[in-house]
Amino acid sequence: MQSTPTHTVDVAVIGAGTAGQSAFHQVKKCGKNVVIINAGSWTTTCVDAGCMPSKLLLAAAERAHLAHTADEFGVITQVQIDGKAVMQRVQRERARLASYVQATVDGWDDDQKISGTARIVGKNADDQTLLAVNDDIIAADTLIIATGSTPSVPDGWADILGDRLLTSDTVFDLPDLPKSLAVVGAGAIGLELAQAFSLLGVRVRLFNRDATLGSLSDDDINAAAIDSLATMVDMALNATIDTLTQTDNGVCVYYTDCDGNAQTFEAEYLLAAVGRHAELEKLGIDKLDIALDDKGYPKDLDPATGQIGKRPVFVAGDASGHFPLLHIANIEGTQAGMLAKDCPITADYIRDLPVPLSVVFCLPNIAQIGQTYAQLKDSDTDFVTGKVSFANQGRSRVMGVNQGALHIYAHRSDGKLLGASMVAPDGEYLAHILALAIMQRLSASELLTMPFYHPTIIEGMRTALRDIVKQCLALSDDEGTDTAAARAAETKNAALPNVNPMLR
Amino acid sequence: MQSTPTHTVDVAVIGAGTAGQSAFHQVKKCGKNVVIINAGSWTTTCVDAGCMPSKLLLAAAERAHLAHTADEFGVITQVQIDGKAVMQRVQRERARLASYVQATVDGWDDDQKISGTARIVGKNADDQTLLAVNDDIIAADTLIIATGSTPSVPDGWADILGDRLLTSDTVFDLPDLPKSLAVVGAGAIGLELAQAFSLLGVRVRLFNRDATLGSLSDDDINAAAIDSLATMVDMALNATIDTLTQTDNGVCVYYTDCDGNAQTFEAEYLLAAVGRHAELEKLGIDKLDIALDDKGYPKDLDPATGQIGKRPVFVAGDASGHFPLLHIANIEGTQAGMLAKDCPITADYIRDLPVPLSVVFCLPNIAQIGQTYAQLKDSDTDFVTGKVSFANQGRSRVMGVNQGALHIYAHRSDGKLLGASMVAPDGEYLAHILALAIMQRLSASELLTMPFYHPTIIEGMRTALRDIVKQCLALSDDEGTDTAAARAAETKNAALPNVNPMLR
Repeated sequence: MQSTPTHTVDVAVIGAGTAGQSAFHQVKKCGKNVVIINAGSWTTTCVDAGCMPSKLLLAAAERAHLAHTADEFGVITQVQIDGKAVMQRVQRERARLASYVQATVDGWDDDQKISGTARIVGKNADDQTLLAVNDDIIAADTLIIATGSTPSVPDGWADILGDRLLTSDTVFDLPDLPKSLAVVGAGAIGLELAQAFSLLGVRVRLFNRDATLGSLSDDDINAAAIDSLATMVDMALNATIDTLTQTDNGVCVYYTDCDGNAQTFEAEYLLAAVGRHAELEKLGIDKLDIALDDKGYPKDLDPATGQIGKRPVFVAGDASGHFPLLHIANIEGTQAGMLAKDCPITADYIRDLPVPLSVVFCLPNIAQIGQTYAQLKDSDTDFVTGKVSFANQGRSRVMGVNQGALHIYAHRSDGKLLGASMVAPDGEYLAHILALAIMQRLSASELLTMPFYHPTIIEGMRTALRDIVKQCLALSDDEGTDTAAARAAETKNAALPNVNPMLR
Repeated sequence: MQSTPTHTVDVAVIGAGTAGQSAFHQVKKCGKNVVIINAGSWTTTCVDAGCMPSKLLLAAAERAHLAHTADEFGVITQVQIDGKAVMQRVQRERARLASYVQATVDGWDDDQKISGTARIVGKNADDQTLLAVNDDIIAADTLIIATGSTPSVPDGWADILGDRLLTSDTVFDLPDLPKSLAVVGAGAIGLELAQAFSLLGVRVRLFNRDATLGSLSDDDINAAAIDSLATMVDMALNATIDTLTQTDNGVCVYYTDCDGNAQTFEAEYLLAAVGRHAELEKLGIDKLDIALDDKGYPKDLDPATGQIGKRPVFVAGDASGHFPLLHIANIEGTQAGMLAKDCPITADYIRDLPVPLSVVFCLPNIAQIGQTYAQLKDSDTDFVTGKVSFANQGRSRVMGVNQGALHIYAHRSDGKLLGASMVAPDGEYLAHILALAIMQRLSASELLTMPFYHPTIIEGMRTALRDIVKQCLALSDDEGTDTAAARAAETKNAALPNVNPMLR
């Protein structure tokens, strides 16, 4: 196929979400001729249907929850949820954030941005990729694909449920809280939304085919997460959905529960939160002879650079299928922009992604940092697990948020921190501290030399770190390899012993 | 003076608060003969009248505040404060914590602990210190003084106000919330309690002789703290208290306000929060020929070890006059225990105190980390200040806690982090992350390579770090010393640029 280009550019970026914008910005900075093409509104998944509206809904839910449970503090509250007002704040703040994105886009040169759906139509004789957009044909030396991802919906559900089917793309547009909601999928999105709606008085049931919450691979932490969340949201775990029907008032879920019994749950809507997928095939990527795997991602994608084989084609952000996280999309987009078209500051700029970090912002927060329990087991790493429960942790109990547990994994030989899993009050902060410590390659005893203010939830993390030190010391005794000097150094760094139970 | 000892020990510890307990525990661990003497109940300032009851009261206050301000989220609340229930929870949880301390003490050998007031009576011919306790005379080779501190009350106030005068020693014993309260002093204790009572519906006015809150020496941060706190507590700053009187219903404060006008404030009680002091002179420390300075602390105290001159006498915890903070008392007590009586693991165990960190747990939190603004100015350090306001910071606004500001100080030459001051939502966590970064001697650009999850309040900290990098880069341009390589390295480490306003 051959067409006469109406534009010729060094780099074409398809998609103006977080990754696409970062790539576009970076290519411009490198002084290259660039165009960015976007279908639909110029906003980001994060703002429109992702991190921001979910956190806005959770903020309302947390207020409701803290008010509902304030009696024990002598703060007697009567709470009424104004569902329309809840959704209006979500939508109003979302619109405000979207206006910031729009303002950024408005600042770009008109001839560098095109509204429309891009389709790859082939290559020309100069080996440039040809894109059809509206009535234009664009010839680009390098292509950056940043087309994002879309909520997955199991086959047939859309037909059966019609407008009773919600995804994260549509749920935040509801004019009012639903009366009841079936949520399918206990990943980050399903957990956050099921809990948020439940705490806001919606009758919710969260369905999951297994009993794993938020991808937790550490069974103890997963069990603690189930214990904590079960107090706030009704969950049907290890459930199989047999049939869905639309009813006069909504949907009916026919399912088999964990005990093998047939059950039903009727609700106004069903929210599918079973994952996200890219739709690269719709882009016409086959025209470049790029093969996709069975999940729809390019087989040849280099995870370090986002480049497809040796082709001048990069994939960044959710479309790469790596981590559907904003801070990763930003990094991948920027890097693709640097690598594209021999930007003068190239190879030097390829850097490792930061320490892995994922957070589910339910209450208490679920977080995984560094290597997961499953990864450590699979790699036969010799590690110890430092443990703490927050059930009676000092400050957590003071605040009335004493739920959850934290496991920190460390090399058995030297106590170097490897990773952590938790369901913990203010876990997002513990997660960042541990991520920084892992980035700095600290051991448990080294991290124990940081100040631990009293009374803080961070002191709970200290208990787990001390548990690691204790296990590492026990090992060196067992093996008879302990020397007085090594032990003294370890003890010295293990922060100070204390007899004050307040410090636990 | 000479007396015949009834007991002879290697080490006597006077005072069984946090520092004393840590010292006692450590001396025992070293295998020395030790006795600990305590006047009054065997608990700690932290549990009885310090960190814990104040945080318990603040927890109730925060619940009330979050409920009162939940309307904007669509969460419509009616809040009634049950003052008796508020104080009962504070007292119940405090008693629970005290029972843990008591259980620890119960585990000690009876012949190692003495209830009573110790008084130094002199030295014997063997150069041992002699202590009188009840009917006993104890001869000790080494003395560890851990007698803590007491709330200061200006001369005459106790006589004028009688039982209308409260301090942190008595305020948590109130059976009900007061109707109204004058709080004098805007340090940590005054700020926390004034705000807590105010948010719980008590009519409060907080008086301070100057306009500095929580020892903040950075004027901009102090101004931000005043702005934030003024929305939650009535403050009379730069006020001079002229006269206090007791009235039929409480107290009347006659004062001159910041404009020089005479004013009055009537309240049920007055809470004096004007500082704490040790009372070493009551111990008979003069019997050891130890001179005290005009604040009542030993002139010869070595701040690194707590030792008084070359004498076998150590001071640990609040009694040393350094930092009235639990984590410091724990360290000082343990260290004194190690140093006392040639414990076999001595000099090696002397270690620097951790990175300075202080937190006032008001809303938003006030915190100072590392070197303060005043210290940097006084030492003529060449530094830049990275700044961020939380007024419109993404996640803070989502949560409805968008108040405050953060300043991070860094060496102008290399961006190495030196310190920070803030009044910030969840500031206690930002403070710990910055303390860890300073401990690791990180520069702003190095800290920027940690993962910053989205959306978090920690992203606000990132804005301030980027501000530092920008200023350091600008400097190298100005001075013409920039090289392409240095600049590229700096840019590379400065984390990625982003065009997404959500990342601000």
